[in-house]
Amino acid sequence: MNAELTRQVSELRETVARLHSELTRYGLVAWTAGNISARVPGQKLMVIKPSGVGYDELSAATMVVCDLDGVLVEGDLAPSSDTAAHAYVYRAMPEVGGVVHTHSAYATAWAARGEAIPCHLTAQADEFGGEVPVGPFALIGGDDIGKGIVTTLAGHRSPAVLMRNHGVFTIGRDARAAVKAAVMCEDVARTAHLARALGQPLPIAQADIDALYHRYQTVYGQKPVPPTGS
Amino acid sequence: MNAELTRQVSELRETVARLHSELTRYGLVAWTAGNISARVPGQKLMVIKPSGVGYDELSAATMVVCDLDGVLVEGDLAPSSDTAAHAYVYRAMPEVGGVVHTHSAYATAWAARGEAIPCHLTAQADEFGGEVPVGPFALIGGDDIGKGIVTTLAGHRSPAVLMRNHGVFTIGRDARAAVKAAVMCEDVARTAHLARALGQPLPIAQADIDALYHRYQTVYGQKPVPPTGS
Amino acid sequence: MNAELTRQVSELRETVARLHSELTRYGLVAWTAGNISARVPGQKLMVIKPSGVGYDELSAATMVVCDLDGVLVEGDLAPSSDTAAHAYVYRAMPEVGGVVHTHSAYATAWAARGEAIPCHLTAQADEFGGEVPVGPFALIGGDDIGKGIVTTLAGHRSPAVLMRNHGVFTIGRDARAAVKAAVMCEDVARTAHLARALGQPLPIAQADIDALYHRYQTVYGQKPVPPTGS
Amino acid sequence: MNAELTRQVSELRETVARLHSELTRYGLVAWTAGNISARVPGQKLMVIKPSGVGYDELSAATMVVCDLDGVLVEGDLAPSSDTAAHAYVYRAMPEVGGVVHTHSAYATAWAARGEAIPCHLTAQADEFGGEVPVGPFALIGGDDIGKGIVTTLAGHRSPAVLMRNHGVFTIGRDARAAVKAAVMCEDVARTAHLARALGQPLPIAQADIDALYHRYQTVYGQKPVPPTGS
Repeated sequence: MNAELTRQVSELRETVARLHSELTRYGLVAWTAGNISARVPGQKLMVIKPSGVGYDELSAATMVVCDLDGVLVEGDLAPSSDTAAHAYVYRAMPEVGGVVHTHSAYATAWAARGEAIPCHLTAQADEFGGEVPVGPFALIGGDDIGKGIVTTLAGHRSPAVLMRNHGVFTIGRDARAAVKAAVMCEDVARTAHLARALGQPLPIAQADIDALYHRYQTVYGQKPVPPTGS
Repeated sequence: MNAELTRQVSELRETVARLHSELTRYGLVAWTAGNISARVPGQKLMVIKPSGVGYDELSAATMVVCDLDGVLVEGDLAPSSDTAAHAYVYRAMPEVGGVVHTHSAYATAWAARGEAIPCHLTAQADEFGGEVPVGPFALIGGDDIGKGIVTTLAGHRSPAVLMRNHGVFTIGRDARAAVKAAVMCEDVARTAHLARALGQPLPIAQADIDALYHRYQTVYGQKPVPPTGS
Repeated sequence: MNAELTRQVSELRETVARLHSELTRYGLVAWTAGNISARVPGQKLMVIKPSGVGYDELSAATMVVCDLDGVLVEGDLAPSSDTAAHAYVYRAMPEVGGVVHTHSAYATAWAARGEAIPCHLTAQADEFGGEVPVGPFALIGGDDIGKGIVTTLAGHRSPAVLMRNHGVFTIGRDARAAVKAAVMCEDVARTAHLARALGQPLPIAQADIDALYHRYQTVYGQKPVPPTGS
Repeated sequence: MNAELTRQVSELRETVARLHSELTRYGLVAWTAGNISARVPGQKLMVIKPSGVGYDELSAATMVVCDLDGVLVEGDLAPSSDTAAHAYVYRAMPEVGGVVHTHSAYATAWAARGEAIPCHLTAQADEFGGEVPVGPFALIGGDDIGKGIVTTLAGHRSPAVLMRNHGVFTIGRDARAAVKAAVMCEDVARTAHLARALGQPLPIAQADIDALYHRYQTVYGQKPVPPTGS
């Protein structure tokens, strides 16, 4: 690696390690079940969590670097057992700079029933532009999970997909955006669960969902920092 | 601004920034989805959260000041995307000194079904004087949300309104009172949800609700500090 | 007060103030809605939380001392609005050294339906010796709540009573024991709620409940410190 | 004890005391209701929590050492009231190096209904290899609980068993592995509860459960540290 790449990777190791604390803060993960990765911009590389390591022990130094076939390039520990899925997403979706995986409870409950989360909340229209879709059942270990994520997301605005009987994968222009999607996915999954538990939520007109989504993607927040990884 | 106004605004920036920690402490907000404002007493001004900024990064310095048409007057960041709704409330309700907005999960679940929270708890009679009402569906970006809040609250004692498919807005004589209403709204929304999940809660007689409300508003707590903003 | 009584009261102020942190740790209270008191052993006095004061601001100095008619004896702040209920319990039940009141969500949901918590858990048999009973609806401000507590507890082993449409009161030989009962009451209320949400919990035979209760009251824990207040 | 044994016991006291903080971090225990033990490798001894002592007060020094009949060997405090159950497991299952007991709410709700947790989640297939089974109702105080645990686990891959109307016991090659099983047991119990609350979770084919279990037990995580206690 040249000096600039070394600096970039070192910064991403720090960022990705630190972002895992958002997963624990919002209760999205138990023990070591959840992971974050970031694409190294302009490179066929990603920074990802090591496998089976506790969130308290994560640091820039314990993160690992893999190529986009999931092969370890730098680091002392074995990469996350979900590395193949992350790698597939980066290969197939060049605009994606960050990927997150969790088994957050409410979202995974929808996934266990194989049900998409219908859009009954303005916050869901803002962030997901409609329903949060369900992907297929797929076994870990090859490209099946990655393919299921990419194929399912292709037909939706949502940066989150519920993988059947499994959990959540989210994408973003960088790792922070993917973490935000994971946090908001559990939030809307929980509210949608509670709403339906006592009756039937009221629909939002498609035109209103479209208007909310468009506004949020273009007006919300501060003047955006140029996206990472594209 | 003269020196006294500068001092007043500076104090409100500090207060409003700090009060946001109550929203995270009680789990009422995810990521950046929730905001607090305070009227500057005697002025056509309010202090409000900047848009899309995380709760860890809030400080007196990052708060912004807007006039009551929602136009930025002081501050480096864009104001909350809910500024128009806050501004409308301050214009229409001169006795209001603070406004809070959240998507807290249990309250928003009632809002998604378009159902008011019926009053089956003495704590709800105390704080809300009856049901917590539901306002109309309204799109962000103009005065529709503000109008919906003000019109709905006009017919109720409640300082909280559930905006349909959206979330909660609360008011108070100052920002702290509005935050208290937001905390208590989620608390009663949760208990009411749990109560109805396994059967039918028992009614409280209207005369008892009236007696509880009257007592709480006049006897509870310490001798009140003179209200802000009126 | 003589020197010994002053020391005793000062120690109880410290203890009672600190015990409130268990209410927030276990999420039993929102804002200022919950309070703890302790009888001053051998005196017609109790130490109790001041009204409407936040849990972060509680300290030995802010606690207040009342007589057993609820009249303020020492302290700068107004006593809890539930003081009359605490006082009634101390007058009627000389073996009680501590009283706790909360609106903890799951327990209060049972109270809102006017349903006792049936005993389907060994932990409930241990601590409560059977069901957690429901007391009558009663308005705040006189002796009605206190009478409802005492009358209802008289027919049960339980140190906790669910006051209808209101919340939980617990008693103990000292304030710490009453806090433990409040924590365990919410714990069994929650598990009982979850159990019944998906079906029907299995019964425990009365003889087994009796055996569990007897063992727990005599064998569990370390050699007991002599009880306070008796 | 010789010097090496003294060192080993001292280390285990520290480890077991510290591991209890995982039970509070994940909200698996209320007040003092939950305990962890570890076998002293190669000895007929175990280190276990003292009875009725709060989690904040646990330290290496307050832990106690018992033999595998549950008799106190070293320590100033009475051992956990669940010591007999732990001891029975160590006597009957020589490969077990750690045992954990909790009343975690969702798992105990399944236990109260006497229902096993069916395997609808890949995370459950990974960790438990199928359903989490239910053991018999058994009274504390003799070998009944221990026998119920051992007999039930014998027919399953699961390191966790739901004891009817009571709570969860988990085992592991060391105390840390048993704590992980307790954390994951509550996690899958919660997601399974939420999934079934709104409908019927989709099945996972037995061959897929087998493949997931086999892979997780052999591939997941870092190169394993040699197991303790076998």
